[in-house]
Amino acid sequence: RINGDRLWDSLMEMAEIGPGIAGGNNRQTLTDADAEGRKLFQAWCDDAGLTMGVDQMGTMFMTRAGTDPDALPVYIGSHLDTQPTGGKYDGVLGVLSGLEVVRTLNDLGIRTRHPIVVTNWTNEEGARFAPAMLASGVFAGIHDLDYAYARKDPDGKTFGDELKRIGWVGEEEVGARRMHAYFEYHIEQGPILEAEKKQIGVVTHCQGLWWLEFTLTGKEAHTGSTPMNMRVNAGLAMSRILEMVQDVAMAEQPGAVGGVGQMFFSPNSRNVLPGKVVFTVDIRTPSQEKLDRMRAKIEKQAAEICDKLGVGCSVEAVGHFDPITFDPVLVGRVREAAEKLGYSHMNIISGAGHDACWAAKVAPATMIMCPCVDGLSHNEAEEISKEWASAGADVLFHAVLETAEI
Amino acid sequence: RINGDRLWDSLMEMAEIGPGIAGGNNRQTLTDADAEGRKLFQAWCDDAGLTMGVDQMGTMFMTRAGTDPDALPVYIGSHLDTQPTGGKYDGVLGVLSGLEVVRTLNDLGIRTRHPIVVTNWTNEEGARFAPAMLASGVFAGIHDLDYAYARKDPDGKTFGDELKRIGWVGEEEVGARRMHAYFEYHIEQGPILEAEKKQIGVVTHCQGLWWLEFTLTGKEAHTGSTPMNMRVNAGLAMSRILEMVQDVAMAEQPGAVGGVGQMFFSPNSRNVLPGKVVFTVDIRTPSQEKLDRMRAKIEKQAAEICDKLGVGCSVEAVGHFDPITFDPVLVGRVREAAEKLGYSHMNIISGAGHDACWAAKVAPATMIMCPCVDGLSHNEAEEISKEWASAGADVLFHAVLETAEI
Ligand SMILES: NC(=O)NCCC(=O)O
Ligand SMILES: NC(=O)NCCC(=O)O
Repeated sequence: RINGDRLWDSLMEMAEIGPGIAGGNNRQTLTDADAEGRKLFQAWCDDAGLTMGVDQMGTMFMTRAGTDPDALPVYIGSHLDTQPTGGKYDGVLGVLSGLEVVRTLNDLGIRTRHPIVVTNWTNEEGARFAPAMLASGVFAGIHDLDYAYARKDPDGKTFGDELKRIGWVGEEEVGARRMHAYFEYHIEQGPILEAEKKQIGVVTHCQGLWWLEFTLTGKEAHTGSTPMNMRVNAGLAMSRILEMVQDVAMAEQPGAVGGVGQMFFSPNSRNVLPGKVVFTVDIRTPSQEKLDRMRAKIEKQAAEICDKLGVGCSVEAVGHFDPITFDPVLVGRVREAAEKLGYSHMNIISGAGHDACWAAKVAPATMIMCPCVDGLSHNEAEEISKEWASAGADVLFHAVLETAEI
Repeated sequence: RINGDRLWDSLMEMAEIGPGIAGGNNRQTLTDADAEGRKLFQAWCDDAGLTMGVDQMGTMFMTRAGTDPDALPVYIGSHLDTQPTGGKYDGVLGVLSGLEVVRTLNDLGIRTRHPIVVTNWTNEEGARFAPAMLASGVFAGIHDLDYAYARKDPDGKTFGDELKRIGWVGEEEVGARRMHAYFEYHIEQGPILEAEKKQIGVVTHCQGLWWLEFTLTGKEAHTGSTPMNMRVNAGLAMSRILEMVQDVAMAEQPGAVGGVGQMFFSPNSRNVLPGKVVFTVDIRTPSQEKLDRMRAKIEKQAAEICDKLGVGCSVEAVGHFDPITFDPVLVGRVREAAEKLGYSHMNIISGAGHDACWAAKVAPATMIMCPCVDGLSHNEAEEISKEWASAGADVLFHAVLETAEI
């Protein structure tokens, strides 16, 4: 078994970097705090005898050599970036559990045939730069590098400039590496494991997603002196679209979600009807059919809503992945590890997107989940117990060992 | 008659300060551009022989002496600040027409019994610091100075600090002046005069207003992994409130408006359901009864909407004035001036709030309006013709002359 105290101590130490305002973290990608987090992780990896490679997306690959020079590495990855008001475990648990696997192997003097590479993917959250899972997406050939470098944050800064600014543009061509297998350990971020009193989620699938960024064009006008019948009210159109998205998601229950997290009014003055309203609809479901249907419904009905109000409506897909099925062999190996270790477990579908989704496009991949309190994530109050954290890391350790071979 | 070309040239010269992005202006209150605009106005007033007084709210009072040392001054006021994407005439026309009245008196060698004071009120727009008409509100004793100084812009900067920063904290106690009469000339900002083909609006009333700033408290949570039935969705509550405000305003037609211009989501990340949504509802009507009823309906129904979703709801009134009736004697004088000059005119109710509304609390006050193209204002495309501008300034000149007495 891994060393649960050491893992927990590392989690708490990392959480000191980029502190939030309510006990969590604000360590958004490519900020100074991100750079600081990377340095700490790099130092820990140095101490554990790992060799660093960095690709042009700034993704950190920390390698523990294997005994067979011809064997492809087993990857353990996740991310150290957080939401603006993020938790201490989302992503971080996966990266530091990878490190803990290596530390445990070191303690036990175990060498594996396949190398093991602990990976910190850049910009998993997609909070600062859409889409989420950007670096793993470029790695898997979903996006090209120019597209990624040109992504802009809300202040208009580009991913490429910010990566340069924090000094993490690596030499390695993105996606040049070949993987024997990819494992990702993550908190569930949802309520199921806790409700079902299971220690381990054996992740079989991940639901698909669309991020539909709407730009509604109204007519900037005085809120007081513009009669109701002369308004071209983009705010009103937005409100109808939000209600409609709710209805579309509810019509696909169970197993579908829809909502809006980001909203910009322009010029955003109390006495000016907005000339422009920009917001992103986030819809997800494990069913390809539902996903396609929801997107089609939303785009059609949004256009109708806007037409009726004379509001201009354009939609850009700023994030998308279809539902993912993880590798059955690796999934089986996770289940067996849980069994062997005596941890309660169940199959689960990931509600959130993960770098594993893109890794699955180029390698056998799977995930392990542990519960989180009240299913709460993307919230500074996100919480897990040390025991939950350790159990999943134990399962990770055994599944990786089985795959990397002694 | 006043010199229409000179007035227009001054309008165009002022519009060069704080240019917008689409032909209009961004000269928001207490910005560097505001300071620059004040300097230009001050220089013009110097040239016209006016003496400057500045009060603790930064309001500029430019005095042309009268012949009777005991006669109270006639004030002509409006504002040089603009919306973030404002027009070239909203406010500016009134201030520079006041200057044009003085310039014309100088040209003609006319001295008046009452002094004439051309006034530039600070923060009329309320775009940067709510409420609107802040300095005239303190002048009229509606707000106290501490309240005004503590008002914050969206970046958290206070009115008091910003006034100091641009160097326009005056010595004069706010509201110490007494007025013989107050005139304000403004573009209509609505569609009526143009539709009715009238050159002059004789402003009899101003509709009342509430700015209700809602703070909705939801539960920050992951947009993907949080099931629909576990969401505490402040964004959804907001969308229902916007639709309800529309319904409440439509139920009071004709003669009532309601809408939302300012909106903030927090943390404003695409994959986080908002923990906090803050927006300001703007409702207006000339009827006291309707105004009270609309406010009551909106607060009640918003509370119900939020209750149903488990969303926290608090409301702060960040702006308010009851419907205003202007001074019948001055209103009559404006009408007579339009008649005498042969300009077509009609009675009109101001849809927007103006410093005249607060001046009316402490002095006989009234307004003059000219049409604007398509009724458009609070938009960089706001437009008027030189002829429209001149006609209103002529009426202002004659009404002021009648009141200030030769
Ligand atoms: N795990 C996680 O929260 N990833 C962010 C991408 C997403 O929105 O699912
Ligand atoms: N005239 C004008 O636009 N004033 C701003 C205050 C308001 O919202 O009415």
